[in-house]
Amino acid sequence: MRNPCFLPLLILSLSVSGQTPAQEDLLPYVKPIIGTQRMGHTYPGASAPFGAVQLSPDTDTIPYEQNGKYNPDVYKYCAGYQYDDKTIVGFSHTHFSGTGHSDLGDFLLMPTVGELKLNPGTAAQSHSGFRSAFSHATETAEADYYKVKLEDYNIWAELTATTRVGFHQYTFPASDQAHIILDLVSGIYNYDDKNVWTYVRVVNDTLVTGYRQTSGWARTRTVYFAMTFSRPFNGYGSRKYDRRTAYHGFWGHFDERHNFPDLAGRQLRMHFDFKTQEGEKVKVKFALSSVSTDGALLNLRTEAPGWDFDAVRRQGQDAWRKELNKVRIDASVADKQSFYTSIYHAFINPTVYMDVDGGYRGLDQLNHTANGFVNYTTFSLWDTHRALHPLFNILQPARNADMIRSMLAHYEQSAEHMLPIWSNSANENWCMSGYHSVAVIADAIVKGNTPFDANKALDACIATSSRRSFEGLGSYIDNGYIPAEEDGTSVFTTLEYAYDDWCIAQAAKKLGRMDVYAAYSKRAENYKNVWDPSVGYMRPRLKDGSFRKDFDVLSTNGQGFIEGNAWNYSLYVPHDPPALIALSGGNKRFVQHLDSLFTMDLPDKFFAETEDITRDGIIGNYVHGNEPSHHVAYLYDWTDQPWKTQERVRMILRKQYGPAPDGLGGNDDCGQMSAWYIFTALGFYPVAPGSDQYWLGSPAVNSAALQLENGKTFTIEARDQSDKNVYVKRVTLNGQPLNRRYLTHQEIMDGGKLVFYMSGRH
Amino acid sequence: MRNPCFLPLLILSLSVSGQTPAQEDLLPYVKPIIGTQRMGHTYPGASAPFGAVQLSPDTDTIPYEQNGKYNPDVYKYCAGYQYDDKTIVGFSHTHFSGTGHSDLGDFLLMPTVGELKLNPGTAAQSHSGFRSAFSHATETAEADYYKVKLEDYNIWAELTATTRVGFHQYTFPASDQAHIILDLVSGIYNYDDKNVWTYVRVVNDTLVTGYRQTSGWARTRTVYFAMTFSRPFNGYGSRKYDRRTAYHGFWGHFDERHNFPDLAGRQLRMHFDFKTQEGEKVKVKFALSSVSTDGALLNLRTEAPGWDFDAVRRQGQDAWRKELNKVRIDASVADKQSFYTSIYHAFINPTVYMDVDGGYRGLDQLNHTANGFVNYTTFSLWDTHRALHPLFNILQPARNADMIRSMLAHYEQSAEHMLPIWSNSANENWCMSGYHSVAVIADAIVKGNTPFDANKALDACIATSSRRSFEGLGSYIDNGYIPAEEDGTSVFTTLEYAYDDWCIAQAAKKLGRMDVYAAYSKRAENYKNVWDPSVGYMRPRLKDGSFRKDFDVLSTNGQGFIEGNAWNYSLYVPHDPPALIALSGGNKRFVQHLDSLFTMDLPDKFFAETEDITRDGIIGNYVHGNEPSHHVAYLYDWTDQPWKTQERVRMILRKQYGPAPDGLGGNDDCGQMSAWYIFTALGFYPVAPGSDQYWLGSPAVNSAALQLENGKTFTIEARDQSDKNVYVKRVTLNGQPLNRRYLTHQEIMDGGKLVFYMSGRH
Repeated sequence: MRNPCFLPLLILSLSVSGQTPAQEDLLPYVKPIIGTQRMGHTYPGASAPFGAVQLSPDTDTIPYEQNGKYNPDVYKYCAGYQYDDKTIVGFSHTHFSGTGHSDLGDFLLMPTVGELKLNPGTAAQSHSGFRSAFSHATETAEADYYKVKLEDYNIWAELTATTRVGFHQYTFPASDQAHIILDLVSGIYNYDDKNVWTYVRVVNDTLVTGYRQTSGWARTRTVYFAMTFSRPFNGYGSRKYDRRTAYHGFWGHFDERHNFPDLAGRQLRMHFDFKTQEGEKVKVKFALSSVSTDGALLNLRTEAPGWDFDAVRRQGQDAWRKELNKVRIDASVADKQSFYTSIYHAFINPTVYMDVDGGYRGLDQLNHTANGFVNYTTFSLWDTHRALHPLFNILQPARNADMIRSMLAHYEQSAEHMLPIWSNSANENWCMSGYHSVAVIADAIVKGNTPFDANKALDACIATSSRRSFEGLGSYIDNGYIPAEEDGTSVFTTLEYAYDDWCIAQAAKKLGRMDVYAAYSKRAENYKNVWDPSVGYMRPRLKDGSFRKDFDVLSTNGQGFIEGNAWNYSLYVPHDPPALIALSGGNKRFVQHLDSLFTMDLPDKFFAETEDITRDGIIGNYVHGNEPSHHVAYLYDWTDQPWKTQERVRMILRKQYGPAPDGLGGNDDCGQMSAWYIFTALGFYPVAPGSDQYWLGSPAVNSAALQLENGKTFTIEARDQSDKNVYVKRVTLNGQPLNRRYLTHQEIMDGGKLVFYMSGRH
Repeated sequence: MRNPCFLPLLILSLSVSGQTPAQEDLLPYVKPIIGTQRMGHTYPGASAPFGAVQLSPDTDTIPYEQNGKYNPDVYKYCAGYQYDDKTIVGFSHTHFSGTGHSDLGDFLLMPTVGELKLNPGTAAQSHSGFRSAFSHATETAEADYYKVKLEDYNIWAELTATTRVGFHQYTFPASDQAHIILDLVSGIYNYDDKNVWTYVRVVNDTLVTGYRQTSGWARTRTVYFAMTFSRPFNGYGSRKYDRRTAYHGFWGHFDERHNFPDLAGRQLRMHFDFKTQEGEKVKVKFALSSVSTDGALLNLRTEAPGWDFDAVRRQGQDAWRKELNKVRIDASVADKQSFYTSIYHAFINPTVYMDVDGGYRGLDQLNHTANGFVNYTTFSLWDTHRALHPLFNILQPARNADMIRSMLAHYEQSAEHMLPIWSNSANENWCMSGYHSVAVIADAIVKGNTPFDANKALDACIATSSRRSFEGLGSYIDNGYIPAEEDGTSVFTTLEYAYDDWCIAQAAKKLGRMDVYAAYSKRAENYKNVWDPSVGYMRPRLKDGSFRKDFDVLSTNGQGFIEGNAWNYSLYVPHDPPALIALSGGNKRFVQHLDSLFTMDLPDKFFAETEDITRDGIIGNYVHGNEPSHHVAYLYDWTDQPWKTQERVRMILRKQYGPAPDGLGGNDDCGQMSAWYIFTALGFYPVAPGSDQYWLGSPAVNSAALQLENGKTFTIEARDQSDKNVYVKRVTLNGQPLNRRYLTHQEIMDGGKLVFYMSGRH
C-alpha cells in the first residue's frame, strides 16, 4: 500500500489546475520524496538540475562495515535517507540518486541548541547524540527546496542549492548555546578507513575552508569546500576521533580543541557557537570544488554572492521549471507526479564536475580545465546507457554531447586507456560489466548529435574494446566468448560485449569506417556462442567449447550471470531481436518464453542468492528493478503479438511506479528507472541504443509536447487513452499512418505529431 | 677513538696538494660520511646545494612506533643511515640532515636480482628481504655522489642529484630476474598510520608517476614524483600491504598485481622487471614536486633531460665547488676535511621547495608561485637562527633573503598568522620554543641584507610575537614571564621570547620605528623576571610571583627547561651579557660560574632524564650537542678573562668535531653545529644574531679568504696558529689594531684583512 501523504496537495493541485493550461506551473508535481522509502534509493533534499551539490538530510550514517564485516543495513542508506526513520542526523552535501552501492555524504551540517554534543547518537538512543527527531508532517520536499523541523531543538531547517553551492537557512529559538556542527567523519557507506584525510582552516569568523579525502567507491577522491556563515560565530572548537594521532611535533604549544584555526586528521568534528534570538535565522553557504579551496571560494562567490535564501531558492526552482517545461503532458495528477518526478530524477545526474572557471581534478589526479564544454561525472553507464542517455539525445542533446566530451576526457586521462565504466569524481570503480560508454557514444553518433570529434570518439570506443586485460576481454576476442572458467559472469559479460560491439559497428558505419563496421559486426554476433540450442538458453560455456553441465536456468549464483538468471539473459540481444527469435525456435516459442517470464513464480532461493534484487522489483521472473530486462517487454513488438508489449508496459508502469515515498520498485539507478518511465509513458522506447529506432508501446499520457532544443515541438496524442484502453489500434505520424512498430529519431527531431488511437481490446 | 677510514685519502690528498694552491680542488675535502656514526644524524648520499632531493642509502627503516609504543631505536635513523649497520635497505629521495626528530625517506628504490622479494627484511635476517649487505670498503661518499656495492646482488649502485631530481645508476650482473623495487611503504620515522595515501600510475614502459601523502612531523604533506627508466622494463607488478582495503568496486575486472597501471592505497610496493646483461647499467631518474606529477615531470625534463650519469654528477659537483670556493682556508688536511664538510652540511639546508617554474604547495594547501624568489623549506629555526643564518648573511646573502621571503610567504599562508617555528614541506610542526624567525629577519635587517620589504617583515614579526594563544605568550605579555603552572618549559620559553623580542626591537630601531623599539626593548628585559637573585639562577616562577620551591639546578625534568638545565639556561641572555653578569654578581662570580660549567661532573640522572642529550655532546655540564649553549664559551669575552673563550672554543672544536664518521658530537641540526664550527674556526661568532657584532674567539685555520657576493674578499690570517698556540695576543684589521673583542658585519662586507697574532700563553 502506498503512503497517501500527497493527498492534500493532490486535491489542491486539482482544484487549482484542473486541466493542463499551457502555463501551468509544473514544479509542484515534482515529489523528491518518491523513492525514499524502501528500494528507490533517492534523496529528498535540494539539487539544481545536474547539480554538483546534492544537499539532503541523512537519517542515518551507519557504516558499511563494522569490525571488518559487511553491515547489510547499510544498503538502505545509499542515498542517506530512509522515509521510515524517525531522526535526522544532519544535512550533507553530496548524494547519489538511486544507486545500488554508494559513497559520498560529505560535510554533514547539523544545527543544535543546548549542551554541545559532537557524537551523532544512534537511532535507538537519539538523545545520546546531536541527531534530532523529525516528522513528515513538518517536512516539505520540492525540487531544489527542502524544509523540516528539528523537533529536539525547535529549529527549522531549510535547504536549497545552486549548481555548486548548498545554502542552509536555520531558524533558531532563543539560545545562549546555539551550535552548528560540521561533521567531517560522517559519510555514506563509511568504513573505518574510508576517511583518508580531512583538513579544515578557519579563515576568519565567518569563513571556513578545507577538504575531505576519501577512499570508498571512488578510490582516490578529494572534495574541497568553502563555508560561510551569515553572521560571525562567537567561538568554535573541534575534536579528533582518529584511531591514533601521529606525532605532529609540539602541538602542546596550542590548545587544538578551542579556537585553533588549522586542523587536520582522519576523523574530525567541529562546532561553531552562537547566541541566538528567538526566530533568528543563521544561514550557511557551503560550496564544493574538486580542485582546491580557492576553487570552492570562486564557486561560492560566483553562484551565491548574497544572503537572500528565497532568491537563491527561486533561481534554482526556476531552473527546474525550465527543465520540466521541456515535456508538457496531459495526464492525471498522480501520473503527472510520477512523470515530472521521473523527469526530475532523470535530470539530477550525471552531475556537473567542474568549477565555474572550468577547472576540475581529472582521473590522472591532475587539475584540468574543461575548454568549451561542461565536464560531468557520476556515470552509471551500465544502467543509464539504456534509456537515460537516449532520452538526453532528445531532450538534452547539448548536455549529452558534453557528457560524451567528459567521457572522452576521462579516456584521455585513463591509465588503462579506456572510456568510463562507472565513474564518479574522476575515479573509475569498474562497476558492472561491459563497456557501455560505447553505447552512449554510438547512440549520439547514429542520431547525429555529434558536436564532438566523432572519429576520435570512435577511436576511444575501439581502444576500450581492445583492452585485453579487462574482464575476460582477451579471451572474448580470441574465442568469441568468455570461458566460464575465467569469469563468474562469463555469459552476461559475453552478451554485453556483443551488444556494445554492435554499437561500435553502428557508429563506424555512420562514419564510413567500413573495416571497423565489418570487424565489430562480426563481434556483435558473439552472443550466439553462448547460446545452447539443446536447451534453448544462454549458458556458460567452457574453454573446450562444451557447455557447462551444471546449469540451472533460474539460478543467478555462479551461473555466469549477475542481477538476473539465464531465463532473463536469454532475452538479452537488444541489437538483433529477429535473430534471437530465430535462435529461440521462432515466433511461437519465443512468445511462450516471454509470457512465461511475466507469469511464473520464482522459488525463494532466487531472492536469497541474487544480488540487488528483491520482490519489489519483480513481476513473475521479470526483473524490472534491475536493468537488463528493461527492453524485454518491448520484444513482443518483433512477434505477432505486439499488443502484449502494450499490455505489459502499462502493467509495469502501474506496478513499479507510483507517486508515493515507496513509488519506485527498485533503485532508480541514476535516472535509468525514471527514463524508462518517461519513454514508456510517452509511448515508445529505445530498445537498442545505437540504433535510431524507438519501438512503440502504449502511451500512458493523454498528450505530450516535447520542446526540442532545435526549437521544434514533437507532440504525442493518445486518443481515448485510459487504464483500460491500453491497446494501440493504429498510429499516425503527421496525419499519415505509421505502418511500422517504431519511430525514428529524425522523425522526433523534425517535430510533428504522433497520434495513438487507443482501445480496450487488442 | 675515531674511525681511521680516511687515512689513505688523507695521505693521497697531502701528496697531491701539499700546501693550498689557489685553485686546489676543495671537493675531496667534503666527507659526507662525517656524522653518520652515532649522534650526527647526517646522511652520506647525494644532494645538490640546498637541493630538494637528498638521495641517500637507508640502512634501516624501523618504525617510530610499534603497537602504539615508541621505539627508542628509531632515533638513530633520523637520517636513515647508521655507519655501523651492515645492510642497505635501499635508496630514498628525501632526508633531513642532522635533526633530532625526523620524517621523510620517501620513495625507496632498491635494485635486486634473483627471486623477487617485496619485503625489506630485518637487520638480523637480511636474506629474508630485499635488503643487501654492504661494506664501507666498497663505499664512496662525496658531495653529490655516492657509490656502493650491494653484495647480495653483485650490483653497483651510484647516486647523484640535481636540485629536484635524483639520478640512480645501477650496474647489474647478467640476470633473467633483475628487479628495481619501488617501496612506497618505507619511510623514516614511519608509523602504522603515517602513510595517508599513495598513488602510482604507470604511464608507459619507461615512465611512472604518482605521489605519497604522509602525516608525520609534517602533518599534511604530499610529495609527487615522476620516475623514468633508461630502458623499458619487461613487466611490473605491485602488492598492497594495507591493513584493509576498502571496497573499490569491481576490481576483479583486472588483476591489480600484474601490469596494472593505476594503483592506489596506503601501503604499496612495486617492482619493475628486467633481463640484464653482465655489466649492464640501468639508470633511473626520479624527480620530486610538491605541486603535481606534472610538476615533477617538468623538473625532470628541465634539470636532467639526458641519460649521461657522469655529466649530471659533474654538474652537481661543480655546483658544490662553486659553493666551497666561497671560503678558501689554509689548514691541515684533517681540519680542511672538518671545515669543508661543515660548509657542505651548512649548505644543504634549508632546502629548495618549488618546481622549476616557481610552483609550490603552500601552508594553506593551495598551490602558489614564488615570484622573483626561490622558495625554501626545512626551517629548523630554533637551531639555525643562532649561527647558520648569520653565516648566510655573510656567505649566502641572496639565498638568506630568499629564505626570509619564504618565511614571509609562510606567514601569509598561515592560519595562525605566524612566521615559521619549525617548518617543513609547507607544514608547521611547532618544534621547540620561541619565535626565532624574528631573529633571522632582524639579523638580516640590522645587517642591511634586505632585498625584501623590511617593514612588512617587521609587521610579521610583531604579529607572530602577539599571538596570545601560542605557548604561554598571553601570560608572558601580561606578566612578563610564563608562570610555571602553565608550561613545562616556562623558564626556557620566557628566556627565548625575551631574546626574540630584543631582536624585534633591533629591527625596529634600524627601520626607525621607535615605538616598536621601545615596546620590545622592554619585553626584551623579561629574562629578569625569571631570575631568582636568592639562588643566582633562572628559576621557575609561579603565577603569584613567587619562585617554585621544588628546584634542582641540574635537573631538566619538569624544571621549566628542555635540552638543558638551570645551570645552562642561567647563561641564556645572549642579547645582554653585561646585564647578565651584573645579575650574576659581577665579573668574578660570573667567571666562576662559567668555569664550573666546563669542569663539573654531571650525575647520571641528568642523562637519563634529559631529552636529546648524551655524553657525546657534553663537556662537563656544557652541552655543545644542544644549541642553547652555543654562545656560552664566548661569554668570557665580556669578562676580564677572554683568553678562556679562546681556550674553550679550541677545546670544543677538537672534542666535538673530527673528520670521521663519528666526527659530530651531537645532531648537526640542519647545519647549526657546522655553522658553529665554521665561525669558530674562522675566529669569531655571532653571539646575538640581531646585532651586527661577531665576537672574537681563536681561529683554528692558518688563513682564510671569504669570497663575498659583493665581489669583495675578506681575509683572515692567524699568525703562528697551532693546537698549542690558541691564545690571541692581538688583532689587527686592515693593519690597524682592533681594540675591541668583536668585529662588525660591515667590516667583513667591506672586504679587508683581519690578522690574529697567536701565542701559546695567554
